[in-house]
Amino acid sequence: MNKLLIVGTVAFDAIETPFGKTDKILGGAGTYIGLSASFFHLKPAIVSVVGDDFPQEYLDMMEKKGIDISAIEVVKGGKTFFWSGKYHNDLNSRDTLVTELNTLADFQPKVPENFKDAEVVMLGNLHPLVQASVLDQMTVKPKLVVLDTMNFWMDCALEELHAVMKRIDVITINDEEARQLSGEYSLVKAAAKIHTMGPKYVVIKKGEHGALLFHDKDVFFAPALPLEEVFDPTGAGDTFAGGFAGYLAQSENISFKNTKNAIIYGSNLASFCVEKFGTERMENLTREEAVERLKKFRALTQFEIELE
Amino acid sequence: MNKLLIVGTVAFDAIETPFGKTDKILGGAGTYIGLSASFFHLKPAIVSVVGDDFPQEYLDMMEKKGIDISAIEVVKGGKTFFWSGKYHNDLNSRDTLVTELNTLADFQPKVPENFKDAEVVMLGNLHPLVQASVLDQMTVKPKLVVLDTMNFWMDCALEELHAVMKRIDVITINDEEARQLSGEYSLVKAAAKIHTMGPKYVVIKKGEHGALLFHDKDVFFAPALPLEEVFDPTGAGDTFAGGFAGYLAQSENISFKNTKNAIIYGSNLASFCVEKFGTERMENLTREEAVERLKKFRALTQFEIELE
Repeated sequence: MNKLLIVGTVAFDAIETPFGKTDKILGGAGTYIGLSASFFHLKPAIVSVVGDDFPQEYLDMMEKKGIDISAIEVVKGGKTFFWSGKYHNDLNSRDTLVTELNTLADFQPKVPENFKDAEVVMLGNLHPLVQASVLDQMTVKPKLVVLDTMNFWMDCALEELHAVMKRIDVITINDEEARQLSGEYSLVKAAAKIHTMGPKYVVIKKGEHGALLFHDKDVFFAPALPLEEVFDPTGAGDTFAGGFAGYLAQSENISFKNTKNAIIYGSNLASFCVEKFGTERMENLTREEAVERLKKFRALTQFEIELE
Repeated sequence: MNKLLIVGTVAFDAIETPFGKTDKILGGAGTYIGLSASFFHLKPAIVSVVGDDFPQEYLDMMEKKGIDISAIEVVKGGKTFFWSGKYHNDLNSRDTLVTELNTLADFQPKVPENFKDAEVVMLGNLHPLVQASVLDQMTVKPKLVVLDTMNFWMDCALEELHAVMKRIDVITINDEEARQLSGEYSLVKAAAKIHTMGPKYVVIKKGEHGALLFHDKDVFFAPALPLEEVFDPTGAGDTFAGGFAGYLAQSENISFKNTKNAIIYGSNLASFCVEKFGTERMENLTREEAVERLKKFRALTQFEIELE
C-alpha cells in the first residue's frame, strides 16, 4: 500500500452561510485532504499542529478513518488555529471574520520516520518555506508532489513560492490565483506560463464551474456536479485535492489519462463535501455513495459522437 | 432534407472589446443562428427584416451558405436594426451603448409558404408575441421548437413569455435569466421549475463556463473550449443555439442522447465564433475545422473509469 504524506492545517472553523451558522467545528486543509484521501487504498498521514484545546474525539475520528495522526503535534497550553468566515448569498465569495494563527504561527512540520519515503506528498496551503521544509526531510524522492497554494503567498512570499514550485509535479490553484501568478487572463496562457515555473501538471479550480487539468498541450475539464443545494463550500477545494492525490497515490500511475481520472475522483468527493457544514458529510460518506455518484459524473459528461 | 425555420434579427453591430473596435458590421441573432445551422445537412430559412441600407453582399453571403433569405424583408426607406456594445476587460459583461430598433420596431414575421411545414423552428430572442405569431403560422406542427429569450422580456412581457413557453420543446437561456425566470438560485432547482412552465428540455448557457442540458431527471454538461484568446463574445450564444437546433434538425432524433450531442455541436461552433470580430470566423469556418475541433472537445471531456 502506498503512503500519502499530507501537510496542512488541522483547525477550528466557525462558518456562516445563508443557511445557518456553526460554532467552532472541525476544519483545516489537512483535515479535509485526509478525510478525502481516506477513501482510497493507501496509508495517509497528516503532519500538522494543534493546541491542547483540540478535542480528542476529532483525532479519534481521523484515526478510525485509517489516517496516521502521530505527526499531528499537540502543543501543551497552546491554542488550535482558528478561522471564521461568512459566505455571501451566492456562496461564491466570502469574508474572513477571524484568523487566529495560534500554534500554527510557529509550525515546523516534522515528517515521521516511516513517512520519509512516502510515494506521494500533498502539500496543503501553507507558507512556501514550510512546504519546502517537508520536501527537505524526505529521504526518498517522492514519485509525486502536489502543492496547493493561494494568493496570500503570492502577495507576501512570492520568491519562496517560486522556489518550492520548482520541486513539485502538480500545482492546484484557483482561477484568480492562476491569473495573478502568471499575469495572464486566459487560463490556457496562464497554465502554459505556470508550467514553465516547474509543475508539469497545472490544475485550475473554478469552484462551482469545475476544474481544468493542463499538461503539455493536453487539457481536460471536469465540471462540478450541479447540486440542488450547496450548503457550505468550506473545504471543497481541499477535498478535491485530497481525492486527486489519494487516487494517484492508490493507482501509482501519473499518466495524463490516469490524472484525468484523479480529477474526476476529486470532483466527485468535493461534490459531497459541500452538502453539509464542515466535515460532516465527509465523515459519514460511504464508499458506495461515492461510487454511485461517479456514475452521475459519467452521465453528466460522457457523449458519443462518431466523427468521420 | 429537413427544414429549419429561423426567426431572429438580422442587424448591424458595432462592437468594442479590449482588443479593438469595429464600425457597423453584420450582426443579429438570426444571422448567427443561420450561419451556424448552415454547417448541417438541412434547409435553413431566416425570417427577419432589414432596411434598404442593408448591403446586398451580406444577403449574398448568406445565400451562398445555403440559407433561404427570401423571408428577410427589405423595407424601402427603412433602416436596419443597430446595436452597439462595449465589453468589459474580462469579456464576461458588456454595456449596451446604442440600440436603434428601426425597422425591427414594426416587425411582423411572415413565414414563407414552403417553410410552414418546417420540421424544426428556432425562435431567436424577440418579443414573445412575435415568437408566438411564427408558431401560429405553421400549418404542420413542428417536430421541435427551440426558443431563446432574455431578461428584458421577463421584465416587460412575462405573461406573453409564459404563454409562448407552453408551446415549445426547448428553451435556451443564460444562468442569470434562469434564476430570474424561476426565482431559484440553484440551477438544478431553476431548471425543474422551468420544466413545469412548458419546455421539456431546458438549456442553461453559462458563457465561458459551458452549458447545461436538463431533461426530466437527466443532466448533461458541456464546457466551453478553453481558448488562448477570446476576441469577441458577440453572437456566441446564438451560434450555440444555431448549432444545437441545426444538429437536431439534421438528425431528426430528439432523444436525450442525441440532444447531448447537439449541445456538443453547438458548443463546438460557438468556440469558433468568439475567435474573431462579429461573424468573420463563422463565415470562413470550414467543415474540416469544425470536425477537427470536435476531437478536442472529446479529449477535453471524455474519461474512462471502471466502476465496480
